[in-house]
Amino acid sequence: MQQQFPPLQAPRRLLFGPGPSMVAPRVYAAMSQNVVGHLDPFFFEVAEEIRLLIAYAYSTVNEFNLAISGTGSSGMEAAVANFVEPGQKFALLTNGFFAERIGEMARRHGADIVRFAKDWGQPFDPQEARDFIRRERPRVVAFVQAETSTGMFNQSRTICEAAHEVDALVIADCVTSLGGMPVLVDENGIDIAYGCTQKGLGCPPGLAPMTVSPRALDWLEKRTTPVTSWYLDLRLLDTFYSGHKYHHTASATLFYALREALVMVSEEGLEHRCERHRRNHVAFVAGIEAMGLQMLVDGHHRLWTLNTPRVPDGVEDGKVRQYLLEERGIEIAGGFGPLAGKVFRIGLMGHGSTADNVLLVLEALEAALKQQGYRPAGDSRAAAEKALSAAV
Amino acid sequence: MQQQFPPLQAPRRLLFGPGPSMVAPRVYAAMSQNVVGHLDPFFFEVAEEIRLLIAYAYSTVNEFNLAISGTGSSGMEAAVANFVEPGQKFALLTNGFFAERIGEMARRHGADIVRFAKDWGQPFDPQEARDFIRRERPRVVAFVQAETSTGMFNQSRTICEAAHEVDALVIADCVTSLGGMPVLVDENGIDIAYGCTQKGLGCPPGLAPMTVSPRALDWLEKRTTPVTSWYLDLRLLDTFYSGHKYHHTASATLFYALREALVMVSEEGLEHRCERHRRNHVAFVAGIEAMGLQMLVDGHHRLWTLNTPRVPDGVEDGKVRQYLLEERGIEIAGGFGPLAGKVFRIGLMGHGSTADNVLLVLEALEAALKQQGYRPAGDSRAAAEKALSAAV
Repeated sequence: MQQQFPPLQAPRRLLFGPGPSMVAPRVYAAMSQNVVGHLDPFFFEVAEEIRLLIAYAYSTVNEFNLAISGTGSSGMEAAVANFVEPGQKFALLTNGFFAERIGEMARRHGADIVRFAKDWGQPFDPQEARDFIRRERPRVVAFVQAETSTGMFNQSRTICEAAHEVDALVIADCVTSLGGMPVLVDENGIDIAYGCTQKGLGCPPGLAPMTVSPRALDWLEKRTTPVTSWYLDLRLLDTFYSGHKYHHTASATLFYALREALVMVSEEGLEHRCERHRRNHVAFVAGIEAMGLQMLVDGHHRLWTLNTPRVPDGVEDGKVRQYLLEERGIEIAGGFGPLAGKVFRIGLMGHGSTADNVLLVLEALEAALKQQGYRPAGDSRAAAEKALSAAV
Repeated sequence: MQQQFPPLQAPRRLLFGPGPSMVAPRVYAAMSQNVVGHLDPFFFEVAEEIRLLIAYAYSTVNEFNLAISGTGSSGMEAAVANFVEPGQKFALLTNGFFAERIGEMARRHGADIVRFAKDWGQPFDPQEARDFIRRERPRVVAFVQAETSTGMFNQSRTICEAAHEVDALVIADCVTSLGGMPVLVDENGIDIAYGCTQKGLGCPPGLAPMTVSPRALDWLEKRTTPVTSWYLDLRLLDTFYSGHKYHHTASATLFYALREALVMVSEEGLEHRCERHRRNHVAFVAGIEAMGLQMLVDGHHRLWTLNTPRVPDGVEDGKVRQYLLEERGIEIAGGFGPLAGKVFRIGLMGHGSTADNVLLVLEALEAALKQQGYRPAGDSRAAAEKALSAAV
């Protein structure tokens, strides 16, 4: 080949977007351990540890927990492909981009979709959601617990209760809550939950941790049509992870990384970890508001992992992001769809959710805004520090 | 969490099964570089380099080349999901396990399947294959170029010519040929080829490099039904890799590893690399035959990447594999399906295809066979060394 390829030199980014988040050195170290085969006894030991650790991270006693060999979106497709049968009624509760993505997948898999929609970033009214589910009596209800497009946390309990009343299964997207907020699969009554590795868990992307309730497994056994996706067929995957029979070549490398990240969750303790995320989120918001910016989402509906301050008038969000990336090596994200140009999406999650990073991002964001002529209302650092010390 | 998890300590396996193969230190090093976001300009630089390097490894001028975010089997499903429409005629040429897997996927995606089948490990007669395709006039023809279940190389040319005569697309599974044997996509006329990272390329598993011809892209544009899989929809993936518009969170980590492995292919030169595999394969077979074992597949149909000697009478293949794994840290594989207990599957591929490894595996295999009471016919080391020096 004529073209020359210089040695790879990845820049050191400070990852404060909606994911991937910062990766702890010990996760990188685990990942560079020797590859073993996907049928090696050691591989299955690691897979079994991951099974237990996924249960812990989701707060569930479910035994069917595994990591899908793909990104979070493959977890979403696994949920839809296995639990949607063509022509069956599928209730979508949507108030953001990722719920719409679930709907698009369900459409492709032949679902009869009924929608309960709010504007992006607006909460569901619990009574309305309940009435909708009771009225529609779907086979499956799907919603996004942590909506990455808006920074909104959707409460699960009422949705799950109403779904179970009409004997429907509940699919919850936990991509941006897993490892950073209380997902509480069992307490909420979620039947199928999926997440990703590169946000609250602080791992590189590549796997989708998933948990499935016994109730959903019963449903799956009674399914009459084949699952269209062979790659994501949960019953086939179970012959591999439980039966140790070849299905696909799961990546030992990614499993090492995920195990290490999940062990870090268990060592910190899930409650402490969520509390760390909450505390840093609160301090960050205190700083943002002191600066004079407003948050898109109302107080108690906010994610602790991903913050969505509105872009102030007269500021171009693209220029702010460009300044941060080029001058500070910081990645944050903008909004898209109806929120394009209107919000920043700033993640403080996993290994990256620290008090130091709260102050670092506030300072850098303020500098970027000043470049655009914005004049901060007050002292964001002082406000954040005050919140941090009050929280201790 | 009550359970304690000790530090991860992966054993050092010598990977001489059908994959994963040994990973070069520089690939591990690339993989532990800093994660960047999937929309980072640097990520797209790496993805663009990978696009060019995939074309080189497949010997194609195709511009549509990408790495699917899943293992080789996800590449297979991407090929089937995008190029099979429900009810259309799909011709499967099968003489092994992985061709049957393509058939299973095509069935799930609604194809009208017609089969041209040979026993596992038996070649297709070119004239028969041609007649079959001319008679059936399918929309798509699928076959496995390098059949990992049998160690057989299926010649592509006649199949592709006959398919194009009847205006069918050709899908070829190159999972065990890519990076170790001449795939020759353009010269053969393959329309859709997919492979994996963990065999001839010597990379950890997790991605499926794929190339698609302009002819197949035209076909895709005219497709009338939606692709059921959102995750594997090639047109959506193109909006990400070409259009830099978010689709899924591709793993920078895996992309770094794949780039490094592909750069190693380009530095060695594809022809030299394939010749290295051929030379070491020939020497290994010389040693195997000197030992008194027979190869399953006839001479010029053999893979250079994966060898399938028959298990000699009176030997239990499971005990041989157990001895190798436990006493030598060597992974090889057994046969399955109709070949269960009848063959060993021994890979010398990617970074692991070296003269030293030929001798190492022969010696270890001989020791394992002796444990089972087998008496070697002759001097396998001498035969292999002779072949190696003759080949220089």
